[in-house]
Amino acid sequence: MNAEPSPTPPPAALGRARSDRARQVADVLRGQVLAGDLTGVLPPERMLIAEFGVTRNTIREALDLLRADGLVTRRPGIGTVVCGVKYPHGLHRLAGLAEVLREHGTVTNEVRAAGPITAPAQVAAQLRLDRGAEVTYVERLRRLGGEPLSLDLTYLPADVGAPLLERDLAGNDIFALLEEIHGQRLGVAEVGMEAVNADPDSATVLEVPRGAALLRWERLTHFASGRPIDLEYIRFRGDRLTLRARLDRLPA
Amino acid sequence: MNAEPSPTPPPAALGRARSDRARQVADVLRGQVLAGDLTGVLPPERMLIAEFGVTRNTIREALDLLRADGLVTRRPGIGTVVCGVKYPHGLHRLAGLAEVLREHGTVTNEVRAAGPITAPAQVAAQLRLDRGAEVTYVERLRRLGGEPLSLDLTYLPADVGAPLLERDLAGNDIFALLEEIHGQRLGVAEVGMEAVNADPDSATVLEVPRGAALLRWERLTHFASGRPIDLEYIRFRGDRLTLRARLDRLPA
Repeated sequence: MNAEPSPTPPPAALGRARSDRARQVADVLRGQVLAGDLTGVLPPERMLIAEFGVTRNTIREALDLLRADGLVTRRPGIGTVVCGVKYPHGLHRLAGLAEVLREHGTVTNEVRAAGPITAPAQVAAQLRLDRGAEVTYVERLRRLGGEPLSLDLTYLPADVGAPLLERDLAGNDIFALLEEIHGQRLGVAEVGMEAVNADPDSATVLEVPRGAALLRWERLTHFASGRPIDLEYIRFRGDRLTLRARLDRLPA
Repeated sequence: MNAEPSPTPPPAALGRARSDRARQVADVLRGQVLAGDLTGVLPPERMLIAEFGVTRNTIREALDLLRADGLVTRRPGIGTVVCGVKYPHGLHRLAGLAEVLREHGTVTNEVRAAGPITAPAQVAAQLRLDRGAEVTYVERLRRLGGEPLSLDLTYLPADVGAPLLERDLAGNDIFALLEEIHGQRLGVAEVGMEAVNADPDSATVLEVPRGAALLRWERLTHFASGRPIDLEYIRFRGDRLTLRARLDRLPA
């Protein structure tokens, strides 16, 4: 966009393969889309060519990358249009999904299974229960605006979880119900997060293509007292969520 | 493993499809593998059948899920063996990759491109530079123990980034070099994290199958003074990294 001639090479030069330049362009455009700085119709190709200093083919390859991720689509006679909406999920505090996404729509839960089961050894250990203890198992498909967002498998000690079974699990976060029922605040949770490919059955449930990228969480939540009371395995659709964190160089 | 008869149904009962029960079993086993609680050869099928209260076919389907993610492999005459190693990447403070993974091996960087370029408008805006300003671009394939871990595309203001070009980028984190060269500590970084499928070229560079799940970061890092000085787009191999965070219910 700088019209003056300059000795500095254009952004995606440095003599690399077209696929490398396309990735470089796509990353910058993707950042603009995710930040909400690019909405509606993308700038015409000739503007993108001028801005990034690359060929038409490189711009097209970059747009193909965004299209493959479902962020943009091509509308005949209009151009390339932003279509992907990703919701921000902050990692600055522990919150249930309905709380986190309150501004973005209504979270509803389809309860796929709920009831008492015998804890597997690993689950018992994490919840600090005796081997073979009873736990409450709840499996939910969670939707935002009607569309699947995550599949959550939850284990709770029986004394903590059994009262949930009398409540409206379809319309409430488990976190909010736990605090209300037990009159205690939640404390901290340890979370492990990975990117995985959707297995065929999870893909069917979440309504994504087989192999689609998912964010998978394992989260162990404690009451403020320190007692571990909620072990969850969560699969989020990768195309619907962006995690947001603020990292400090110096330990707090 | 509890030998006493009990009215509580076994872990994966509650009358669901086998694929749902297999996912449930796989999630618990996966948690054990990632935590390092399950190493070497997995317990024999009959023990898993007893522990989870499911059929042999369900256990096999669960193990297939772990195998598809590269966490376990079948060794003829031995059984199912843990083979996937995932490195923990804490989100409690801002650090370079070599710092984060110090205990796990040596990080080396293959510099794929490095030099001055004209900043695309979005990059200039994020780094608070004038439109068309010069920035330093560095593209690195980062390896841990020789195997690709991430592909990083980095933009820095020219006054901050140019001195990097004289340094050993192959053997050092950019973060460490920036602090050394400029005699300033880094401050905070804002990070956006997504799960995406690898496009064909990124898959080739990272040596993963096409479509493999990646963790994609966009990270804007500031000097302690508050000046934004490092904008990175990072693709981590999903099969090599688990992010770890501790979330608090109450805001700090």
